[in-house]
Amino acid sequence: MDRIDQLAIIGTGLLGTSLGLALKQRGFPGRLVGLGRREATLERARQRGAVDQTSTDPAAVLPEAKLVVAAVPLGGFEAVFKQLAPHQHAEMVVTDVGSTKAGVLAAAKRHLPRPEQFIGAHPMAGSEQAGPDAADPGLFEGKPCILTPDQPSDEQARAEVRSLWERVGMAVATMPAEAHDRQAATISHLPHILAGLLVETARERGGWELASTGFRDMTRLASANPPMWADILTSNREPIRHLIQTFQQQLQTMDERLAAADHQALLDWLQQQKDHRESWLTRFEDRRRNGTGEGEENR
Amino acid sequence: MDRIDQLAIIGTGLLGTSLGLALKQRGFPGRLVGLGRREATLERARQRGAVDQTSTDPAAVLPEAKLVVAAVPLGGFEAVFKQLAPHQHAEMVVTDVGSTKAGVLAAAKRHLPRPEQFIGAHPMAGSEQAGPDAADPGLFEGKPCILTPDQPSDEQARAEVRSLWERVGMAVATMPAEAHDRQAATISHLPHILAGLLVETARERGGWELASTGFRDMTRLASANPPMWADILTSNREPIRHLIQTFQQQLQTMDERLAAADHQALLDWLQQQKDHRESWLTRFEDRRRNGTGEGEENR
Repeated sequence: MDRIDQLAIIGTGLLGTSLGLALKQRGFPGRLVGLGRREATLERARQRGAVDQTSTDPAAVLPEAKLVVAAVPLGGFEAVFKQLAPHQHAEMVVTDVGSTKAGVLAAAKRHLPRPEQFIGAHPMAGSEQAGPDAADPGLFEGKPCILTPDQPSDEQARAEVRSLWERVGMAVATMPAEAHDRQAATISHLPHILAGLLVETARERGGWELASTGFRDMTRLASANPPMWADILTSNREPIRHLIQTFQQQLQTMDERLAAADHQALLDWLQQQKDHRESWLTRFEDRRRNGTGEGEENR
Repeated sequence: MDRIDQLAIIGTGLLGTSLGLALKQRGFPGRLVGLGRREATLERARQRGAVDQTSTDPAAVLPEAKLVVAAVPLGGFEAVFKQLAPHQHAEMVVTDVGSTKAGVLAAAKRHLPRPEQFIGAHPMAGSEQAGPDAADPGLFEGKPCILTPDQPSDEQARAEVRSLWERVGMAVATMPAEAHDRQAATISHLPHILAGLLVETARERGGWELASTGFRDMTRLASANPPMWADILTSNREPIRHLIQTFQQQLQTMDERLAAADHQALLDWLQQQKDHRESWLTRFEDRRRNGTGEGEENR
């Protein structure tokens, strides 16, 4: 990242501001510029020390920026890439923070003159809070970041984007955008839908007074930011729909075990899931403790 | 509970031992007897101070017991009630701790000579640990306990069983066994199945390296005790199967919103579930803080 004397963060919300704070804290020597639409949000990020300078005018700052991080909601990338397009000079590498990747990649290819210098990223860090005030320089520390470079992509761009996210403490892995979105559907988007459906079911059928910590934990995701999740679910709808179909079949199989009152089959199934979950949990906790881990295997 | 000069706890596992410890801590003046099959488990409960005396022989202790708490796994009630039957004298009230109620109630009616003196209870407290060593006198504190007395049941028996669970700090509510089991299917048993299915899905489709705290929380229930849960799922299979059917329809409706890429419908749905969940969570946390709460409304 030595050549990056100026880095622009588009959008100084939770992720953008946290990134600026993390880079500053870790001694990033380049100039950090916050670019956005709302002056109050930009100013708040500057006051917190996340950026050196702010602007609402792309033309004023992008010509100097060697690395641009688009840290906007999923629904905003199309507009951001359009705005970036006239300014993407030969030395400008672009990355993002979107939670789904195929759609962002497609938008980058549609609009950017140098799409091979766009390296999609999903830093898997977040908070229930939003905005620059909730930003935290340790937000990315020890968490996975998935890069989804297109084929072909520029090798130096890949190296720079990897080094950006590693610099703020992330365990960086690479996979195709479609694989990322399919896996995210499994471990994040479907769980989110299930959490909401459990709330809906309890509401329709009663049972709130019996609900306890298990129910609380199983529905925690239903308290997340609705606009952000409406974007995620819409953008990743095909992988999610495919998964819902699979899940319906698994529910059906469970129903058959229950219909047969097959205690042994239920016991075996429960034991299997417990074993798998605990073996994952051990790896997950090791990874968090070490700030690296299995994400590394995909390098 | 003044007349209870001797209380027998059948099964000195986590719940039985915790109950003994809680009664002692709160100055219960009667004699506490632990009855069970395994001497080592009984002895451990006695060493911890949960019971004054132990026995493996029902005939030796039950004639003196005025209140009997059957604290065994769901699969054990049939045998316990058979064993109790010849000893249920006119002054003996019986309660239990089973997580599903219709089956336990049916077994009590089949075997006990005075089923109107059996008052089913589901103290909603537990731990991922088992056995007398994991017992905790504060386990029941502030948590709901659902009584599911049969119609007709003995009024004094109901009052005594209520007063037992209140004495250890629980918020006691009453509902029919079938309503309990239907609600438990919604807020506990289906969530449990979904947690396991999420693990199974991740295992089959990949995604472990992306999985993070959301996935961890959504699958926590999959780490619970498999034999206990095989019993619960088997005993409550009809309400659960009915619920699976409803849930599959809701998943279908979600699939339709996704197929239509209906961002507004998704947003509305997400917002609704968030609002409902948060309004429940506020009540739930108040209830935990106060050690009472909405369970009280069902008195």
